[in-house]
Amino acid sequence: MAQLLAEKRDFDFVMWEQFNNEKFLENEKYEAFNKKTCDMILTEARKIAIKEMLPTMAEGDKVGLKFEDGVVTTPECFKPVFDLLKEGEWGNLGVPEVMGGQGAPSFVASAVSEYFMAGRSALSSYVSMGSGAAAMIQLYGTEEQKKKYVKRMVSAEWGGTMLLTEPNAGSDVGALETSAVKNPDGTYSITGNKIFITCGEHDLCSNIIHPVLARIEGAPAGTKGISIFIVPKYFVNDDGSLGDRNDIWCTGIEHKHGIVASATCSMAMGAKGTCIGYLLGNENEGMKIMFNMMNGARMHTGLQGLAYASGAYQLALNYARERVQMRELGQPHDAPPVTIIKHPDVRRNLLWMKSYVNGMRSFYQYMDYQEELSKIADTEEERALADGIFELLTPIIKSYLANRGYEVCVQAVQVFGGAGYTKDYLAEQYMRDCKIASIYEGTCGIQAMDLLGRKMGMQGGKVFMTFLAAIQNTIDEAKGLTELADLGERTQKMLNKLGEVAAHLGKNAMSPQYKTAFAHSLPYLDVMGDTIMAWMNLWRAVTATQKLAAKPKGKDLPFYEGQIKTAEFFIRTVVPTSMGRMDTILDMCSAAIDISDEAFGGL
Amino acid sequence: MAQLLAEKRDFDFVMWEQFNNEKFLENEKYEAFNKKTCDMILTEARKIAIKEMLPTMAEGDKVGLKFEDGVVTTPECFKPVFDLLKEGEWGNLGVPEVMGGQGAPSFVASAVSEYFMAGRSALSSYVSMGSGAAAMIQLYGTEEQKKKYVKRMVSAEWGGTMLLTEPNAGSDVGALETSAVKNPDGTYSITGNKIFITCGEHDLCSNIIHPVLARIEGAPAGTKGISIFIVPKYFVNDDGSLGDRNDIWCTGIEHKHGIVASATCSMAMGAKGTCIGYLLGNENEGMKIMFNMMNGARMHTGLQGLAYASGAYQLALNYARERVQMRELGQPHDAPPVTIIKHPDVRRNLLWMKSYVNGMRSFYQYMDYQEELSKIADTEEERALADGIFELLTPIIKSYLANRGYEVCVQAVQVFGGAGYTKDYLAEQYMRDCKIASIYEGTCGIQAMDLLGRKMGMQGGKVFMTFLAAIQNTIDEAKGLTELADLGERTQKMLNKLGEVAAHLGKNAMSPQYKTAFAHSLPYLDVMGDTIMAWMNLWRAVTATQKLAAKPKGKDLPFYEGQIKTAEFFIRTVVPTSMGRMDTILDMCSAAIDISDEAFGGL
Repeated sequence: MAQLLAEKRDFDFVMWEQFNNEKFLENEKYEAFNKKTCDMILTEARKIAIKEMLPTMAEGDKVGLKFEDGVVTTPECFKPVFDLLKEGEWGNLGVPEVMGGQGAPSFVASAVSEYFMAGRSALSSYVSMGSGAAAMIQLYGTEEQKKKYVKRMVSAEWGGTMLLTEPNAGSDVGALETSAVKNPDGTYSITGNKIFITCGEHDLCSNIIHPVLARIEGAPAGTKGISIFIVPKYFVNDDGSLGDRNDIWCTGIEHKHGIVASATCSMAMGAKGTCIGYLLGNENEGMKIMFNMMNGARMHTGLQGLAYASGAYQLALNYARERVQMRELGQPHDAPPVTIIKHPDVRRNLLWMKSYVNGMRSFYQYMDYQEELSKIADTEEERALADGIFELLTPIIKSYLANRGYEVCVQAVQVFGGAGYTKDYLAEQYMRDCKIASIYEGTCGIQAMDLLGRKMGMQGGKVFMTFLAAIQNTIDEAKGLTELADLGERTQKMLNKLGEVAAHLGKNAMSPQYKTAFAHSLPYLDVMGDTIMAWMNLWRAVTATQKLAAKPKGKDLPFYEGQIKTAEFFIRTVVPTSMGRMDTILDMCSAAIDISDEAFGGL
Repeated sequence: MAQLLAEKRDFDFVMWEQFNNEKFLENEKYEAFNKKTCDMILTEARKIAIKEMLPTMAEGDKVGLKFEDGVVTTPECFKPVFDLLKEGEWGNLGVPEVMGGQGAPSFVASAVSEYFMAGRSALSSYVSMGSGAAAMIQLYGTEEQKKKYVKRMVSAEWGGTMLLTEPNAGSDVGALETSAVKNPDGTYSITGNKIFITCGEHDLCSNIIHPVLARIEGAPAGTKGISIFIVPKYFVNDDGSLGDRNDIWCTGIEHKHGIVASATCSMAMGAKGTCIGYLLGNENEGMKIMFNMMNGARMHTGLQGLAYASGAYQLALNYARERVQMRELGQPHDAPPVTIIKHPDVRRNLLWMKSYVNGMRSFYQYMDYQEELSKIADTEEERALADGIFELLTPIIKSYLANRGYEVCVQAVQVFGGAGYTKDYLAEQYMRDCKIASIYEGTCGIQAMDLLGRKMGMQGGKVFMTFLAAIQNTIDEAKGLTELADLGERTQKMLNKLGEVAAHLGKNAMSPQYKTAFAHSLPYLDVMGDTIMAWMNLWRAVTATQKLAAKPKGKDLPFYEGQIKTAEFFIRTVVPTSMGRMDTILDMCSAAIDISDEAFGGL
């Protein structure tokens, strides 16, 4: 039967064959998990995603949200699915047990998340936002705060948000104007307006806990003077019951391109009366604390790109196998029409999509792999390296998966022809929903600055060198296999060139030409992402070649052969283009910096 | 003041400085036009586009269409603008006088169309469709048919359509099932269902004339047996008055991603009674006749890509000049925030957009240039070459401008950050409206097949060689200018490589590897388009350099300097990537053909 959302066999391949995650399950903290339980969890998640969530996707988009008198009403079809996920504790699968979660290994939790995200789109944010906010409270809150909020947020009984953006403080968080005044009882009175708040108000949870960034009276300007506060929608009494309504209200929702049923709220605090907030951590530590949540949010955003791309690819593939149109190329005029998967340009397009979906999934799971490595690290140095690689690659996971995921969705629409432009197929919605990923949680431009400005030089460049060495390792394995030696050599050239480009760009970033260097930062992020795609596809091919030696039967045979063909396609038809882009970075053209503002035109 | 839609100065530059179109105005058929009248026309069109049309764009998208009992109601705000355009005879500006048009030179008519299209989006189709259908009648109709229909379609009193697609006949026109049976009076009874019919039914015109593709009973299978019929919504009496309603009805409209207010109709013929059609031209000549309209439609679709990209670029540029966010890179922490146009990644993005908008506009006007050349050609050979170049480049105008135009819109959204994802700014709508261009009037894949399979070898390759020689001419001019010699050399390398790629691909297309060759046909169309962009940007730089020698003042100075910087940017940061893509074509990887259908996964 045709697959939807994501191919289960591919998860098994990545988790157990490419990454050999079984070794992590020996860790005593995973006592409750073995390969079989992981498999059962994923199978069940897949079933829920397809049977329960997927049917709400188009309806949620069509019905949208209702906003009236500060109240946001979600589509009717969301409630039963939300409750099902809450009761099944699906939202807290990967959350540590100490927070009331199930403590599943990250690779299982993210595989489940991919299924859920591809299946539920806008609905996903309502379920997952609570855990992210709770993690900050768990790390920085007082015992009382932890006891009061964490478990009920993790269980999705209460929702969570992140009140960061203001009309004049988007990318520039330091410009925020929301203020906090300390009250005699130690609480703070918060006054200000926030915009673009995901799940800022809705009817799926009985309470919503808002972490709010604000500046305490007299605090320094810029990011150094920002503190973070817990602002509950309803106050929570000491016995856990809900008290009065706090003065934080939704004043409107955005009308958006996609994720239509995910409430993007404007929020007003202290406009009607007094909005009370509780300091989280110390004063002026808001940015540091918030970044804890931000990294998780960036992973999550990358996962959106992957999940929607995978969902869109499966739809396009199924359609290409069913839709009959035109005779096969080179056949006589009276030959019968064939399914469009037979047409060369459609095959190219599908394989292009597959190479990204495969590469992105392995890349995402590689991040989980680093998380697990960090947990079992024997030395501080090992742990710091695993954490470092995770941090180095976070801006790439966020930006690259967002952009490439979107492009896959766009190409999926193309496979459907005219029908793809209509709302009759979900490819159109995947495309719209996916577009947000390149924008929120830090635009792609911001990620590129983070990569070049902060991440490349981490630990004196050791992290980046370790990352290159890991790629080299896969290349060496490929070179040792007759079938893959050529692909190994090609990837070697790319890797060498990436090293050259990184050194060149890094040098320029610290020279008087730094503006020109940063004008090449997003292309650099992209070629680093391309190299990771080549690496992951090659790694898959190495694994598949090893498995093919055991002469597998049935569906495994085309599956493994598919890995090798996909790697060949990517390395021979995408990599050279990326090498060309590397040339442009080496050339360091400064036209975008040199051109006068007036010369952009339109005056 | 900030410009909207398109920069008027740029049209002047392309029409009078890059292409020196004044020479065409000496042609006696353009007696009524001189440079000044052309300028007045364009200035007036710009005013109408901005003041009258643009305000309907967001409203049309929001209100959408109403469909009830076979009747399609357009947004209320459309009617006065439609009437204004009709009364001002704006729809027939470029239509030959013999058809009742104004016979303006194509370069003026297309500049006006670009303004109108960027300003009115969905509304545009209602105004322009009549002329396209009328042109077919003018060419192939009887005197009676011409007299009855042409002028009133050209004037937009009546609408026009093209009934081609059926549920099982999209790209595969030959599979159509609509049938025609000859009646004793020489008319035909038509029976069948069509889908995706743009403007198939609406309330802006008193009558709609449908050209319908159908197969006459007993005609051969496939495209060879297709005839074309004129099927009026209301019969037209000999005195020109409207008679009875014909049995052609709209049975539904599509719910689409964009161009929401452009009616995409399902049409049923002969379902309730008898649908009468009048043969146009001879029996079984339907495809040949239809292709006349198709070429115009493909130009028009390319123009959509350009117009929306230009509109989106101007919006993004204006926003970047107003939006204040973050301090300048490299400034101390307490430095004041600046407009985002100061940020390197935003500058890169804007210049990238500008390089495409400029390149695409010049490319489009180059097509007009060929049209004019054909009209004044001294010899049959000259005319055949100009027509040949026009035909060679038609699939590229259609596919490349659609795709690159869309990407420009996507990047424009990115400049707006979170606000770009909302419907508060038109960038979002330009992006949605633009997506259709890669799909209708033949998908990009179909265009690529046309280019490789039919166009490259035209006139024994002479057309393509003439095209290369034209590029060489600009390169030689650039090499002769000190300031542009380096850009000339770089473009020379690209041109040489394009020649090599074309020869290699052509050879493979006629070998047993033809399927692999066609799997590279769309990448080939893209690199040919990239080469045209490099050429056009270089040509602009050559022109600007010549103008700068005269030491221009005021706004002309940054305008010309902008042309040079834009060319430098494109040739140094986009061209190398495209050269990398050329490498992939030379490598002729066959993975997409070799991979088994099963290995695509998902089974």
